[in-house]
Amino acid sequence: MATSVHNALSTQEKLLRAREAASKTAQLSTAKKNSLLEKMAQAVESEHKSILSANQEDLDSSSLEGAMRDRLVLTPKRIAEMAQALRDIAKLADPVGQTIKEWTRPNGLHIRKVRVPLGVIGIIYESRPNVTVDTVALTIKTGNAIVLRGGKEAVHSNQRLVEILSSVPGVPEGAIELLDSSSRASVQELIQARGFVDVIIPRGGQQLIDYVIENATVPVIETGAGNCHIFVDESADLQMADSIVINAKVQRPSVCNAAEKLLIHQNIAAEYLPRIVGKLLERGVEVRGDEQTRKLAGAEKVRAAEAKDWTEEYLRLCIAIKVVADVDEAIAHINHYSTRHSDAIVTADEKRAHHFMRLVDSAAVLWNASTRFVDGGEFGFGAEMGISNQKLHCRGPFALEELTSSKYEVIGSGHVRG
Amino acid sequence: MATSVHNALSTQEKLLRAREAASKTAQLSTAKKNSLLEKMAQAVESEHKSILSANQEDLDSSSLEGAMRDRLVLTPKRIAEMAQALRDIAKLADPVGQTIKEWTRPNGLHIRKVRVPLGVIGIIYESRPNVTVDTVALTIKTGNAIVLRGGKEAVHSNQRLVEILSSVPGVPEGAIELLDSSSRASVQELIQARGFVDVIIPRGGQQLIDYVIENATVPVIETGAGNCHIFVDESADLQMADSIVINAKVQRPSVCNAAEKLLIHQNIAAEYLPRIVGKLLERGVEVRGDEQTRKLAGAEKVRAAEAKDWTEEYLRLCIAIKVVADVDEAIAHINHYSTRHSDAIVTADEKRAHHFMRLVDSAAVLWNASTRFVDGGEFGFGAEMGISNQKLHCRGPFALEELTSSKYEVIGSGHVRG
Repeated sequence: MATSVHNALSTQEKLLRAREAASKTAQLSTAKKNSLLEKMAQAVESEHKSILSANQEDLDSSSLEGAMRDRLVLTPKRIAEMAQALRDIAKLADPVGQTIKEWTRPNGLHIRKVRVPLGVIGIIYESRPNVTVDTVALTIKTGNAIVLRGGKEAVHSNQRLVEILSSVPGVPEGAIELLDSSSRASVQELIQARGFVDVIIPRGGQQLIDYVIENATVPVIETGAGNCHIFVDESADLQMADSIVINAKVQRPSVCNAAEKLLIHQNIAAEYLPRIVGKLLERGVEVRGDEQTRKLAGAEKVRAAEAKDWTEEYLRLCIAIKVVADVDEAIAHINHYSTRHSDAIVTADEKRAHHFMRLVDSAAVLWNASTRFVDGGEFGFGAEMGISNQKLHCRGPFALEELTSSKYEVIGSGHVRG
Repeated sequence: MATSVHNALSTQEKLLRAREAASKTAQLSTAKKNSLLEKMAQAVESEHKSILSANQEDLDSSSLEGAMRDRLVLTPKRIAEMAQALRDIAKLADPVGQTIKEWTRPNGLHIRKVRVPLGVIGIIYESRPNVTVDTVALTIKTGNAIVLRGGKEAVHSNQRLVEILSSVPGVPEGAIELLDSSSRASVQELIQARGFVDVIIPRGGQQLIDYVIENATVPVIETGAGNCHIFVDESADLQMADSIVINAKVQRPSVCNAAEKLLIHQNIAAEYLPRIVGKLLERGVEVRGDEQTRKLAGAEKVRAAEAKDWTEEYLRLCIAIKVVADVDEAIAHINHYSTRHSDAIVTADEKRAHHFMRLVDSAAVLWNASTRFVDGGEFGFGAEMGISNQKLHCRGPFALEELTSSKYEVIGSGHVRG
């Protein structure tokens, strides 16, 4: 049986298969890639029972609880969503083959920069099995081969999903490889496979990302934590500020684009602080603050913020508030403490808004909008591979286009250099 | 004196200064940056005596000989060229602040992707002191701070140049830092300075590049070796093939875009092989070849190629020739042995040319042009930081634009997520 043979391969053999497959996936036409994604969607639907049963094996042997366990659970609805994701990605524009720019040199040499697949993409991720399907869809759509290294808690679900996706007729052999998740050895081999893998994308907690960055020799796209700030300026529409602060903190506190810190202009602090603290407390948010905040909002309502509060990504219903002298103090505070993910200003002053957006050195800077919008789907990318926290290659939410590289085509008529 | 104080700083202190300077260089206007470059050019000119005398100190204590010593030597002409490079880069368009794209979402949210500086750029390089000036010019033009780690053989020249460039009035303190070159300790600190340095660009031999890639935790732009191929197709204009092969091999054999391998279509091998081998030998090129090549061109003229000849980057007047059955064998050979730098086809068959350019997985693919054109200057970039051999961030020759990152500006009117 294909599966057992497949499992018998070493990591090295799987990487070699992926490298060879990448030269085939790179040549697939857009129509062919879309047809493969549609067939994958059908296969996921028709195999939903075996997926659920593989998932049950994972759940039976899992000691995870609560939200962590929930991330692992598959249901008929979640499987239908997987199939839908495959179809949605099929509908997006194919970046491969696009001419990024072209020009002719004075000597007549014509140069064209065209978009090409990256090659082999390595993904290291944790529990959620839908990541398996989403990332396969994004990488196949962009003509890449993919090597997946999922979490051991989802081993049966991932194994079944990869079997289903990779056995769709027309998928080049080796284009979707799943590595052994029982030990860190496969992670180590994957991230050091220079020449076999073109980029590693770690999706998971900070510990995983740090491990990958410290040990990889293959280039990495670093995704990461969001210690996101909202600065409420003295000229802000306070009702607008209320709704943005509440939305950014409360709507989904466990994600990286949720707000963690609130900075308030001193000129409105006496009016606005008691009001927003009240609203946050009403919604079950724990409020911490600097001395000024505690004085104005009431020390009994606000726990004294410690040094580490200004750097911490809470990922839960907790916020730390600081009163600042002006927009420049807000900018300096953000550039010092932010993880450079997403930071927002609420102001009616256009000049100040642009000053803030220019000077805050983050992947996304927002004016009068909730930080929760920093997301591939909300940006209109139709999908998201992650949110890059580095400056190289791509920064902020990234999807199809960022899974490509480029190549120069140089056309002469016997040109030689003098 | 500023110099001695500066030298007394630790690597860590210099990196911190650079990090802080980057927030200032990022805000310099184009006019201000161009004016700094002009002032730097004037300072290099007016200080040419002290530069020459510092360079003499390096030469006096150097044991380098021949071409390696020549790379280190400064002359009044070379100093004038440094000043010219600064002025040339001042004239180029400033990519910082450009809107890469912008769009409005159906909910009214306006999103703008703008070009911003990378931040702090670390350069590790070997002997040539002009690299000090060129890279400072490119990084200052793009609003970045730069940390230089030059070779110990050029320590006095680099020290003097950095003193001159960094003391131009208006250059933010810490924007141009030079690290100690007496040991590898500073390299190690630089390449692991996550959070302080945004990208490392190693410019030098393969050993240096490998060391950086294996030890860096900061993202790297890998530049590297060029085992470049020319495939002469059966339909090639043979006179054109002659001039391209000779130019690519002979014009400057020591550089990465020189041709190292020649593949010849079997249908023209009997006619073309003796001819091109004769022309190469006339120009002092050592010719190696496969069995077929030796048979057709004469075994006494062609040394038998060994396995390692197909992978080696000679960087001298030596070439290895192989007869191939067709364009697909040429493509397969190139994709197997090439360093994916620059590979060319000479053919009169347009369809075959496009087939070759699409399937050869190299940074640059050329049709009827010498591989020697793969160069930032020849591409019209006005300058070159290097030639990237990786697929992430940039691929092929890169200059100003590739020294930038991007940021998303998101503008709402009180937008919150539902």
